[in-house]
Amino acid sequence: MKANTLDRSLRSATDRLPIDPTDGLELAAAEIAEQIDAEEAHPEPRPLMHLILGRPLETAAAPHQTIGKAIGLAVFASDALSSVAYATQEILLVLAVAGALYFSFALPIAGAIAVLLVVLTLSYRQTIFAYPGGGGAYIVARDNLGEGPAQTAGAALLTDYVLTVSVSIASGVEQIISAFPNLRMYQVEICVGMILVMMLVNLRGVKESGRAFAGPTYFFIGMMFLTLGVGFYRLFTGTLGQVEGVETIGATVGPLTLFLILRAFSSGCTAPTGVEAISNGITAFKEPKSRNAATTLAWMSGILMTMFLGITYLALQIHAIPSDQETVISQLGRTVFGRGTFYLLEIAATTAILIMAANTSFADFPRLCALHAGDGFLPRQLTYRGHRLVFSWGIVTLAGLAAVLIVVFNGSTSLLIPLYAIGVFLSFTMSQAGMVVRWRKISVLKPGEEVHTGGSTLRHDPRWRLKQALNAIGCALTGVVMIVFAVTKFSQGAWIVVILIPLLVLGFFRIHHHYQNVKRALSLQARPIDVRTHPVETIVLVNDIHQGTMQMISFAESLGKPWVAVHVAVRPEKTERVLAKWNKYLGDRGPLYVIPSPYRSLTGPIVRLVKEVKREHPDAFVNIIMAQLVTKSIWGQLLHRNSGPLFKFAFQQMQGVAVTDVHYRVGELEQPSQAPALE
Amino acid sequence: MKANTLDRSLRSATDRLPIDPTDGLELAAAEIAEQIDAEEAHPEPRPLMHLILGRPLETAAAPHQTIGKAIGLAVFASDALSSVAYATQEILLVLAVAGALYFSFALPIAGAIAVLLVVLTLSYRQTIFAYPGGGGAYIVARDNLGEGPAQTAGAALLTDYVLTVSVSIASGVEQIISAFPNLRMYQVEICVGMILVMMLVNLRGVKESGRAFAGPTYFFIGMMFLTLGVGFYRLFTGTLGQVEGVETIGATVGPLTLFLILRAFSSGCTAPTGVEAISNGITAFKEPKSRNAATTLAWMSGILMTMFLGITYLALQIHAIPSDQETVISQLGRTVFGRGTFYLLEIAATTAILIMAANTSFADFPRLCALHAGDGFLPRQLTYRGHRLVFSWGIVTLAGLAAVLIVVFNGSTSLLIPLYAIGVFLSFTMSQAGMVVRWRKISVLKPGEEVHTGGSTLRHDPRWRLKQALNAIGCALTGVVMIVFAVTKFSQGAWIVVILIPLLVLGFFRIHHHYQNVKRALSLQARPIDVRTHPVETIVLVNDIHQGTMQMISFAESLGKPWVAVHVAVRPEKTERVLAKWNKYLGDRGPLYVIPSPYRSLTGPIVRLVKEVKREHPDAFVNIIMAQLVTKSIWGQLLHRNSGPLFKFAFQQMQGVAVTDVHYRVGELEQPSQAPALE
Repeated sequence: MKANTLDRSLRSATDRLPIDPTDGLELAAAEIAEQIDAEEAHPEPRPLMHLILGRPLETAAAPHQTIGKAIGLAVFASDALSSVAYATQEILLVLAVAGALYFSFALPIAGAIAVLLVVLTLSYRQTIFAYPGGGGAYIVARDNLGEGPAQTAGAALLTDYVLTVSVSIASGVEQIISAFPNLRMYQVEICVGMILVMMLVNLRGVKESGRAFAGPTYFFIGMMFLTLGVGFYRLFTGTLGQVEGVETIGATVGPLTLFLILRAFSSGCTAPTGVEAISNGITAFKEPKSRNAATTLAWMSGILMTMFLGITYLALQIHAIPSDQETVISQLGRTVFGRGTFYLLEIAATTAILIMAANTSFADFPRLCALHAGDGFLPRQLTYRGHRLVFSWGIVTLAGLAAVLIVVFNGSTSLLIPLYAIGVFLSFTMSQAGMVVRWRKISVLKPGEEVHTGGSTLRHDPRWRLKQALNAIGCALTGVVMIVFAVTKFSQGAWIVVILIPLLVLGFFRIHHHYQNVKRALSLQARPIDVRTHPVETIVLVNDIHQGTMQMISFAESLGKPWVAVHVAVRPEKTERVLAKWNKYLGDRGPLYVIPSPYRSLTGPIVRLVKEVKREHPDAFVNIIMAQLVTKSIWGQLLHRNSGPLFKFAFQQMQGVAVTDVHYRVGELEQPSQAPALE
Repeated sequence: MKANTLDRSLRSATDRLPIDPTDGLELAAAEIAEQIDAEEAHPEPRPLMHLILGRPLETAAAPHQTIGKAIGLAVFASDALSSVAYATQEILLVLAVAGALYFSFALPIAGAIAVLLVVLTLSYRQTIFAYPGGGGAYIVARDNLGEGPAQTAGAALLTDYVLTVSVSIASGVEQIISAFPNLRMYQVEICVGMILVMMLVNLRGVKESGRAFAGPTYFFIGMMFLTLGVGFYRLFTGTLGQVEGVETIGATVGPLTLFLILRAFSSGCTAPTGVEAISNGITAFKEPKSRNAATTLAWMSGILMTMFLGITYLALQIHAIPSDQETVISQLGRTVFGRGTFYLLEIAATTAILIMAANTSFADFPRLCALHAGDGFLPRQLTYRGHRLVFSWGIVTLAGLAAVLIVVFNGSTSLLIPLYAIGVFLSFTMSQAGMVVRWRKISVLKPGEEVHTGGSTLRHDPRWRLKQALNAIGCALTGVVMIVFAVTKFSQGAWIVVILIPLLVLGFFRIHHHYQNVKRALSLQARPIDVRTHPVETIVLVNDIHQGTMQMISFAESLGKPWVAVHVAVRPEKTERVLAKWNKYLGDRGPLYVIPSPYRSLTGPIVRLVKEVKREHPDAFVNIIMAQLVTKSIWGQLLHRNSGPLFKFAFQQMQGVAVTDVHYRVGELEQPSQAPALE
């Protein structure tokens, strides 16, 4: 590398700083960085973008704040708690196949789900203590079971995060429609609009949206307990009536079979999905992190069980009927409170918690994507932090997928539910299987011995047998539930997920394969390093003769390498004009070679020419220089041919070819004399 | 320009040809052209595209075939003739506001429209003889009235071509639905599907689609005369019944006012739109072109009048009722023929002619767009002939706009009709006003004197007064009709067109302004021509250190200009790795300057640097060299950062900056040893 003015200008910056000049390059960098900070970090301000998304954040501003248990409950529990908004209703909907007579089966089913939740809570408590740095299923599976299971757990979770958004938003909008039936015709539009708003909120960043959680979650918990309290009071005083104005269930469609009961159980099993959220987010808690997270998990399970059983019991008492006109929550609310302020508050609280639940996925999905991408199983772009330090690509992807699901399933919770929760239970199974393996590793450790794995520290534990048994029970139970899910809901939509997850895993491994291949191909060990000089054959593409062409010729001359000018004749009349002008203004610099293009392809003949040159001189670089007109506005730009990308695309598969764009800016709406000149 | 190997290789091709070597450059071009023809005109075959659109056509293959009167009628008359499929119905629909009692007014209204058609035919006959090279409203207005009126006429016509597609397709699908009511729920989808198919057919090229016209048009004419013949026979023998099974019109909505009659008249006035088509397409006829075209126009008008009056008369006799369940044509068909083969043939013929009518616009709209674009009032891309020599951009634009209209107006003919035909009548008025001006110019010519204008030749004509009067009557009549249209249909949708056409004209002039400005800015007269050499400051962007980087460094060295390497530090951990590798492999070539980017912008710091260099050395070119990884598949490409376009966008507004892409192809799924090397 030879020193030149630019080099000197970068170096001279160093002298002005009172630091060891041997550290020259970093100092120069520091200098420029300072100027960047002080003067204009953003050469092109985009006020609209900043208004919507907020000002950009510095990398150094990455949040390190932690939260207490009360806020933690609000942040992580909304997903789980919100499922009471639809779980009871979905159980009743399945039982309705056998007739309203069998609705009472809902209570034992809810009881079974509560038992499942207890087991899951105890099992995950152990994961939380084992992985204080964050114990999502992906990490636990990767740490103990290897890449295949980890990718499977990840694929399952990603699927379910998307479904969480779709189901929660669909259910939230159904609550609104229960109160305001006139909005029914805009159901899908409202859902999609909400998803877009959530996308924007999350692109603004986690800090703001995290804080907003506490209010709605506690508002919902308060409203639910108020509903239950008033409901039970009126029940015991005999003043609780039955729901009115909902169409009663018609004829029985089939008998009550075990299959149907299991299907109803599956429909209700959407509640435990929030467990994963807490064990994923341990690092967000204040110290002692694990203990705080575990306590929050216990609180959450307790609140969830109470609400779920209470709502199911009261729904049966008021003879609530599953209906696509009005949700069970709405029926319960207006039977308990009457159609008044409290009813509307209950609907508002339910809608709010559902939106918060969807928001949980907006935090989890991009983070999990970034984990996958960091390991090379998803596109690397998912690890880039955007404008506001959030994983922008993941957020946009999630919003897009969830919106597609809403549109395809017409915004109906009942149609989406069969797809939901299989993924979560699959990941639960993987995660707890990982824990079982981990306890086996611990079993061979002596007291005081410590082994560090990628994600956690293994220490001797005298009660490992008990703890392993607990995780094994959790693993078996969630595995069975997942299979029950897939079988009983298969024909209703679960088949989509059953097909999708293996395809995702396959895709992840193909992406990994690609990155591995590229890494090998680019490796400096793979082949001898060649930084020698080679001959450079320069082709100057002449489309027309104008000031932009002159600048390009000037640039080609300035490079100091021999060059030839070539024109592709697409329209004969234009070619004549171009040739005449060339001979008049530039004839002294050599001929303009005209290559005909009978099929009007601009790139074809040049590709042909370059191939020939490469065949004759495989050792040479071919440098293709072209002028590109740039107008001030994008609208103006659209009025020009813009063939640059075409050429780039045509040449990019050829090795040893460089494409040089010489931009010529046309001062739109300016007088020619004011047009910017090179000098 | 210095001679180099490439230059020699282009020249050496000349020697092998037995032609005067002084003509070197064209010979070299010819040589390559020959090779192109013989070997591989299309380096990357796209079989799917060829299957759908056909093989590409050579420029030399542009069609020069001409057609006779019989085919000419089929090609140009479908637009006009097809309007009988909905004109009667739309008249009745308006009269229904006053009650079915007043349906008989439809006949005098149809009579008035017939008179209008006669005047228009006589007036346009003169245009056809005056403009043997094609006498569309745009050309006639431009020739006689100037740019403003010409653009207005063009905007009006373009609007109406889009509406012709929408209305014809909507009506065609309504005919199908009349016969097969089960398809009603897919009405909009069928319409959009048809438009897409027509787009593809037309992208294949005019020759094939032109030939396909004759059958359907004559089939339709035959079926309509058969319907009328059998209908009148049964009417006179007293065996023609009344239509059954259509809901009768309910309560009267308002009184029969003159306003309502005028509105009914407007709705029926969609028939004459085909007149423009013939006068636009004169050059397609066999010699004597003008006479053949005029005769065809007369035939068309005669057939149209007969069918329109006949259908209206019979529709009244069978007490046809305008309905959105069944078209009047369908009611007439099944009353005359009964529900059998002939009825289905009639529906098929009507649908076919409507599709053909839409197809007329697919020929006319792109051609008119190309005229506008050639004059610089629409984006220049509209003048490019695609793959199959057709104006691809115009075809795609038309299909897109027509499909949007169909979706917005829910595929309903009745909702679209109020927007329709205003544009055509506006262009009629402009065109005939132009003819009036032209006769005035002719009036001052002496016998034998000739004046050539852009589009036609002015010759003395002793009967100019009579002919001017005829055009003036046509102009006044169509002008009045247009105003009646706009007023009576304003609130029903015509306001859209009334607002749209001026906006289009404004847009056309803004585009023109842009092209004029660019032309001035690029003019070689505007500023001194500068093709001197300047200093070149070369910046090599280093994102990572791998084989692609080595190739880039090799290229930078090969250029032989001094250069500096710069790395933008977006992620600190990566920067450290890159610096270490640089020092290990390339440290001997100079330092790698690291510029921090606190807001993770890749381009911002480089833009900042380039600006500084440009400030210090306004005379210098800045050449930015970057390596770009290219994978074999597009899917693979998506897995990489692809920041190239970002940089190009960031620098394109800066004068005197060149961006050089050095592509490095990664052999995906290949063993590294097989990866393509530079040498």
